[in-house]
Amino acid sequence: MGSDSDLPVMKKAVDALKVCGVEAEVRISSAHRTPDKTAKLAREAEQKGFQVIIAGAGMAAHLPGVVAAYTSLPVIGVPLEGGALKGIDALYAVVQMPKGVPVATVAVNGAYNAGLLAAQMLAVHDEGVRERMKKVRMDMAQQGEAKDEKLQQVGVEAYLNSR
Amino acid sequence: MGSDSDLPVMKKAVDALKVCGVEAEVRISSAHRTPDKTAKLAREAEQKGFQVIIAGAGMAAHLPGVVAAYTSLPVIGVPLEGGALKGIDALYAVVQMPKGVPVATVAVNGAYNAGLLAAQMLAVHDEGVRERMKKVRMDMAQQGEAKDEKLQQVGVEAYLNSR
Amino acid sequence: MGSDSDLPVMKKAVDALKVCGVEAEVRISSAHRTPDKTAKLAREAEQKGFQVIIAGAGMAAHLPGVVAAYTSLPVIGVPLEGGALKGIDALYAVVQMPKGVPVATVAVNGAYNAGLLAAQMLAVHDEGVRERMKKVRMDMAQQGEAKDEKLQQVGVEAYLNSR
Amino acid sequence: MGSDSDLPVMKKAVDALKVCGVEAEVRISSAHRTPDKTAKLAREAEQKGFQVIIAGAGMAAHLPGVVAAYTSLPVIGVPLEGGALKGIDALYAVVQMPKGVPVATVAVNGAYNAGLLAAQMLAVHDEGVRERMKKVRMDMAQQGEAKDEKLQQVGVEAYLNSR
Amino acid sequence: MGSDSDLPVMKKAVDALKVCGVEAEVRISSAHRTPDKTAKLAREAEQKGFQVIIAGAGMAAHLPGVVAAYTSLPVIGVPLEGGALKGIDALYAVVQMPKGVPVATVAVNGAYNAGLLAAQMLAVHDEGVRERMKKVRMDMAQQGEAKDEKLQQVGVEAYLNSR
Amino acid sequence: MGSDSDLPVMKKAVDALKVCGVEAEVRISSAHRTPDKTAKLAREAEQKGFQVIIAGAGMAAHLPGVVAAYTSLPVIGVPLEGGALKGIDALYAVVQMPKGVPVATVAVNGAYNAGLLAAQMLAVHDEGVRERMKKVRMDMAQQGEAKDEKLQQVGVEAYLNSR
Amino acid sequence: MGSDSDLPVMKKAVDALKVCGVEAEVRISSAHRTPDKTAKLAREAEQKGFQVIIAGAGMAAHLPGVVAAYTSLPVIGVPLEGGALKGIDALYAVVQMPKGVPVATVAVNGAYNAGLLAAQMLAVHDEGVRERMKKVRMDMAQQGEAKDEKLQQVGVEAYLNSR
Amino acid sequence: MGSDSDLPVMKKAVDALKVCGVEAEVRISSAHRTPDKTAKLAREAEQKGFQVIIAGAGMAAHLPGVVAAYTSLPVIGVPLEGGALKGIDALYAVVQMPKGVPVATVAVNGAYNAGLLAAQMLAVHDEGVRERMKKVRMDMAQQGEAKDEKLQQVGVEAYLNSR
Repeated sequence: MGSDSDLPVMKKAVDALKVCGVEAEVRISSAHRTPDKTAKLAREAEQKGFQVIIAGAGMAAHLPGVVAAYTSLPVIGVPLEGGALKGIDALYAVVQMPKGVPVATVAVNGAYNAGLLAAQMLAVHDEGVRERMKKVRMDMAQQGEAKDEKLQQVGVEAYLNSR
Repeated sequence: MGSDSDLPVMKKAVDALKVCGVEAEVRISSAHRTPDKTAKLAREAEQKGFQVIIAGAGMAAHLPGVVAAYTSLPVIGVPLEGGALKGIDALYAVVQMPKGVPVATVAVNGAYNAGLLAAQMLAVHDEGVRERMKKVRMDMAQQGEAKDEKLQQVGVEAYLNSR
Repeated sequence: MGSDSDLPVMKKAVDALKVCGVEAEVRISSAHRTPDKTAKLAREAEQKGFQVIIAGAGMAAHLPGVVAAYTSLPVIGVPLEGGALKGIDALYAVVQMPKGVPVATVAVNGAYNAGLLAAQMLAVHDEGVRERMKKVRMDMAQQGEAKDEKLQQVGVEAYLNSR
Repeated sequence: MGSDSDLPVMKKAVDALKVCGVEAEVRISSAHRTPDKTAKLAREAEQKGFQVIIAGAGMAAHLPGVVAAYTSLPVIGVPLEGGALKGIDALYAVVQMPKGVPVATVAVNGAYNAGLLAAQMLAVHDEGVRERMKKVRMDMAQQGEAKDEKLQQVGVEAYLNSR
Repeated sequence: MGSDSDLPVMKKAVDALKVCGVEAEVRISSAHRTPDKTAKLAREAEQKGFQVIIAGAGMAAHLPGVVAAYTSLPVIGVPLEGGALKGIDALYAVVQMPKGVPVATVAVNGAYNAGLLAAQMLAVHDEGVRERMKKVRMDMAQQGEAKDEKLQQVGVEAYLNSR
Repeated sequence: MGSDSDLPVMKKAVDALKVCGVEAEVRISSAHRTPDKTAKLAREAEQKGFQVIIAGAGMAAHLPGVVAAYTSLPVIGVPLEGGALKGIDALYAVVQMPKGVPVATVAVNGAYNAGLLAAQMLAVHDEGVRERMKKVRMDMAQQGEAKDEKLQQVGVEAYLNSR
Repeated sequence: MGSDSDLPVMKKAVDALKVCGVEAEVRISSAHRTPDKTAKLAREAEQKGFQVIIAGAGMAAHLPGVVAAYTSLPVIGVPLEGGALKGIDALYAVVQMPKGVPVATVAVNGAYNAGLLAAQMLAVHDEGVRERMKKVRMDMAQQGEAKDEKLQQVGVEAYLNSR
Repeated sequence: MGSDSDLPVMKKAVDALKVCGVEAEVRISSAHRTPDKTAKLAREAEQKGFQVIIAGAGMAAHLPGVVAAYTSLPVIGVPLEGGALKGIDALYAVVQMPKGVPVATVAVNGAYNAGLLAAQMLAVHDEGVRERMKKVRMDMAQQGEAKDEKLQQVGVEAYLNSR
């Protein structure tokens, strides 16, 4: 990410990766304020053994695209809400990449899903990650089921009061 | 894709995959008109040996999200221009996925990049794909270089006239 | 609805139905996290005797469209505010349905109107619902009348102070 | 509809109704230029035996909402593309109805779906309409199937050339 | 206005009119919930001696356009912020009127300016209003001048602290 | 207007005024390229006997607001479609005027309505204009009526073919 | 700026200039309420020795464009968040200037960057400004570096807790 | 610029510079496809004697921001129309730069103004450029004057016919 103000949101990507058993390195490096460092991190990522890069940024969010320019690894972009335009600017700046340099974009502030998507990519060749990632999804499904069951039992009013 | 009217754009994903040496199966199945078939295709994809799914759709573009609901494989979504809202509707309907079910979204009509992104995912464990995919990117870079060189030689006016 | 976080808003649909004398079953089932359950609920609704389905969802709101894909009953969609884009994403994802599978969309967060619209559909063949539904509308009209009368009597300043 | 310039699009609603075996009366009456006539048509519709009203309009599209104000019948609104804002204005002006007076909104220019939605509402109590409406949807599904089969047989290139 | 919830904003129109010496009648009547009353008020306004009508509404804001349909008096429309779309919906629904029935639209929540604009229209034939309205504008200019002078004297820091 | 490229659209304002019997002077003066001339025209308008000013502009459309800053006459603003943003920019730049300086804004490209609105303002004190303006509106209503009658007689297909 | 309510944001431009060693005069003058004063300030700026002008405004933000109309000095425009549209209106009204009169626009509320941009313009011919401006940028880079180093040392959890 | 497809629009910047007597070097280098070359060009620009950089790009337009990251020279960004979102994406991606790295943004496709703005920056210390740039602006003003005079002489109809 480009700034530590992005950390509270981007931490959710780390959370998702952790629960899927994927190790992650978290770096602060700005596409605009420290472009050389950003370029270096992106350029060396593949050799260092990284397999996916997640980049989050707000406003004129260049970080994911700049990272994608310097690596052939898949880059997942997280547009971040922030500033007056509330993340629409970041969404467009991340997803509308020109031909040749894609960024796999998730929802505005969708850092958790970015982690999950990275796990899905790795799961193709890593059974451990695959099992854990599927379990995360199954747990979510079961939580939804449980809520529906409770709702059928107690009814709308009681359900809302018990929350 | 949900309709054969999407084929001229989505074909570019096939083109990108082909040049990277990746085989692809192309299917027409609508999230709305043939939901059972779509569910079946998505659910069986992993077992059949598919490693990535690319789904393109326009307007209230549900196909990528519906496919992602039925598989743990990474799903790449291509929002398609079409209808009065020109693809903004499709972009929001593809990228703004809720927690738990990500779709790796590319630009509106960005089918070529969707193919390239799929190749990048596969390249992590497939050296052949990696070499070809990097060559695609290097070729693009060299084409840009060649154009810049020609521009320096002939100047703006002559360049525009020669196009 | 797809999540119990939608219940406080969607409850207003139940309120509107209740006041019109229409029974309703309220279910939590996600288009993305529990797609099979959602498909099953939608597919069996007609046989179970349901006559209208109301589905509410936020962000890339697929639930109404997915339900509509599995049933021929009229489906009313409620786009929900939520996430950084504040419901514009949900509105587009609900209303911009492709040819063949309509969703009767109401305003963002318009759950009360969704209930009323369902009552209007049922009222065509149910005089009891018709009478109650018309009474709801007449009561609203009279409340407006009463406010206007009070305003004419007390004036703007006193009216605002008495609120 | 408010103007005969809307007829080419709104005719698709008539087409959808016809194929479902539903009779329709088509009227031109503007919410702004002939408000009394519009009010009269809406107010008398129920007594005359109409069961659903479809209203299409562009720009500051008031017709559906104005009709809904004068009747308790379900009103389906079709926002029409037109003018500089390309239908976004019409979409907002049709769907964002205040509490108490819903309009069942379909996609911009979605007149065909408006007809289908009306048929779905009537189908609840009319088996003939129900059968025909389901057949329309089944035919669409089968057309999609046929296209997919052809695509599997001939491949992408041949398919595109044969279109 | 259509609801007393609009009164705190719409009151500013009354304030502007009062300071310009223009009498105003303030009414609550909804285009959707009490359409007949709204039509009656609009239709009789000219005969009763009204010279301008100001109508404020939020969401799918039909009130100004509906009033304009029933009168030949100039109608000033005030789009009101409210609901998830924050007044963009109201702005489009008020300003994008079709050929033949204009609404003189001011900014979202611009009720004060609506009052001032009404005064400007009346000022063309009413010297008293003209003088008072010009004084309002001159006072605003002088207030700005005074602030600039103070800023030059005390400097930015002191100015901000003294606010 | 600021440029003669705006004349084809703005001419419709002149047409509307002419048919209502209102004389108009048409001037080209840019808020940006000839600001002094624009200021002079606006400042002297009242003394010269003008009663309303119509100003049309595209993109960052400042002309209506700048004119309104230099006169107390009512100013009608016409946002013009033009440039990549298709008139949304002009709409916001015309209608969102700050407190104290209103611009009576009509639809994007709504020059005809601007003329009609000017006539409505003048009609308050000019019976001749009032009669002609009302006739314009009545003629429009009757044209709509005639089209509806024809449609009832010939049916949808024949109507469309006869256009 | 047009109003002292803009001062808390616009002060950041002064801060940026000060740290780069550039003197600034701060004035309140509205494009709409005191147009003559604004014109005078802009027209005389070059002769008085000013080299760059920064103008900030919200809503239908005309100030930067109006200033640019009266001077040949480079004008930097700061669109300000404010009102219901949250600065989108101001952004369009500032940046979409017609051919011949550019405004160098920065981000919504981007007053600090406006000051920095002014310093960059002056730095071309002023070594002192150049050195200080570069130092500002280098300091920002080093702060980012330091945050990254701390993050590597303490980890995500500890970093977030220590903020 | 990043691609020779941008040249027809960006050439207008060269035209504006030429008419102001400013020399320009025109380069094709992509922020995404040739990031190292772009970084090198930006980093060396100041030493080579360049005083301003103009960068144009479409879609997720990163070029201006990336260039600004590598140089302290003022960077002018031109968002280019292109792709489904018609330049809104480019506008946001260019103008919404984070604190510390401004881009002086002009209108979508506003390349001519970018050239003029560059000339304005240089004119502060270059009398020759200043005279020519002022002449360009004066010529535009006079062309507008001439059109207005012709319009007054021949009238609207004849003017439109003679175009």
